[in-house]
Amino acid sequence: MSSIKYDIVKEVGIISTTTSGWKKELNIISWNNREPKYDLRDWSSEHEKMGKGITLTAEELKSLKELLNNMDI
Amino acid sequence: MSSIKYDIVKEVGIISTTTSGWKKELNIISWNNREPKYDLRDWSSEHEKMGKGITLTAEELKSLKELLNNMDI
Repeated sequence: MSSIKYDIVKEVGIISTTTSGWKKELNIISWNNREPKYDLRDWSSEHEKMGKGITLTAEELKSLKELLNNMDI
Repeated sequence: MSSIKYDIVKEVGIISTTTSGWKKELNIISWNNREPKYDLRDWSSEHEKMGKGITLTAEELKSLKELLNNMDI
């Protein structure tokens, strides 16, 4: 058995919640004791299960912000 | 063999590029001929290979934008 260690260092915010309680969240997470990164991911209600997601550096989050601010949404 | 069909409907923007040419991109993608969604994902230089990513609805992208604009980044 393999395992992935992770530590949710900071819960930044919730993007959406489904009727089943899963949430799309932006957190700061340390994976396998490495340097914490921003992490955009689906989670079950109490963080028991994780879904797909991606990690982002602070720089990437910043350029995502600029991109979104230049969009007509 | 299974396969996933996808169609990159619109390339919205590039968040970052690694030295190996992989890019973190925001696109609008239709997966398996379903309704197109926003998609934040790593891609090799010419979209030959895809990495991990997540799909987002327009509503989710909007609340992500608001969240990022309220952060000190």
